[in-house]
Amino acid sequence: MSFSPLIKQLIENLQCLPGVGPKSAQRMALHLLERDRDRCRQLATTLREAADTVSRCDQCRTLTEQSLCDICSSARRDEALLCIVETPADVIAIEQAGGYRGKYFVLLGHLSPIDGIGPEDLGIDALVKRVEKRGVSEVILATNPTVEGEATAYFIIEQLRSSGVPVSRIAHGVPLGGELEFVDGGTLVHAFSGRTTVTESP
Amino acid sequence: MSFSPLIKQLIENLQCLPGVGPKSAQRMALHLLERDRDRCRQLATTLREAADTVSRCDQCRTLTEQSLCDICSSARRDEALLCIVETPADVIAIEQAGGYRGKYFVLLGHLSPIDGIGPEDLGIDALVKRVEKRGVSEVILATNPTVEGEATAYFIIEQLRSSGVPVSRIAHGVPLGGELEFVDGGTLVHAFSGRTTVTESP
Repeated sequence: MSFSPLIKQLIENLQCLPGVGPKSAQRMALHLLERDRDRCRQLATTLREAADTVSRCDQCRTLTEQSLCDICSSARRDEALLCIVETPADVIAIEQAGGYRGKYFVLLGHLSPIDGIGPEDLGIDALVKRVEKRGVSEVILATNPTVEGEATAYFIIEQLRSSGVPVSRIAHGVPLGGELEFVDGGTLVHAFSGRTTVTESP
Repeated sequence: MSFSPLIKQLIENLQCLPGVGPKSAQRMALHLLERDRDRCRQLATTLREAADTVSRCDQCRTLTEQSLCDICSSARRDEALLCIVETPADVIAIEQAGGYRGKYFVLLGHLSPIDGIGPEDLGIDALVKRVEKRGVSEVILATNPTVEGEATAYFIIEQLRSSGVPVSRIAHGVPLGGELEFVDGGTLVHAFSGRTTVTESP
């Protein structure tokens, strides 16, 4: 004996959310049904609407239900700077940090032959065309410092070589507030090889 | 600059789920939109269907979309035993433990004057009628061992006094596999006051 078929199905469906297992799904389902019917309906409506209408920005490929995202349609952003990131969440993180006033290109993933994700899935053709056509003066690679992120960055560097536009990679090293003692070896090696001179040589 | 209005709304709505804050909601929304549109639609459909059709079992008041839940409609369960619990999740926990073959009555909450939850919200009238009418030979109180759960249990004991049906409370004490050293004081006091004799007095 257990929950009724519909409640069982709801518990199962809730497990498609990342980080939600059977126990939390059960808690969520009962919470919604016991206390929050209206918000449950509202969530259903928003989920369906988002699944049906959210698409990609025509220019930067980020997720949006508009044809151009806010950043791409803004006249205040510097067209000459183009930052390449893996996901829309990365855009938000960079925006919240502040300081960057250029535009973005969102790959929505990284090269991963094992999952069948190739350059065409990441829109790299469109990226190359955009860099060649418009007055882009610098491309900043901000893919994740993981094996796949690095591979994707190097692939893009190769693709952009013929355009002659300078390509840079964001710095990797010891994070601010981090203590050297607790930073992993890979990051320390990066921090040393990427060191910058602070005094002129005599 | 941040997410588009619809994605923002989805992230906000997902926060109605228990245990989901802004960060996990963002992760859920992007996961669904980047990878799982079909399951997103499926979840939306199930949420709406559940919110619209899940109601209460006519007999035991548990959440179900049927008029009688599986346990109430089962002929194999002992009508003479009635176990009173706070939520449908408690029913599942007792069923999974096995051993209990009687029926249930689900309060869907506990007395909580501060939240405006009184006896009428817990269906205690229906409970008293059911105990008086049908051949119930024992009522087992399995509300939570919290202040509200205990208060609810004592209120029900008072309401059922006139029916003459014996009422019992499940045992509270040291959990199996628990080490005495790590059990809280309240539980230990309960364990001592609820001790059972294991040898006959001479």
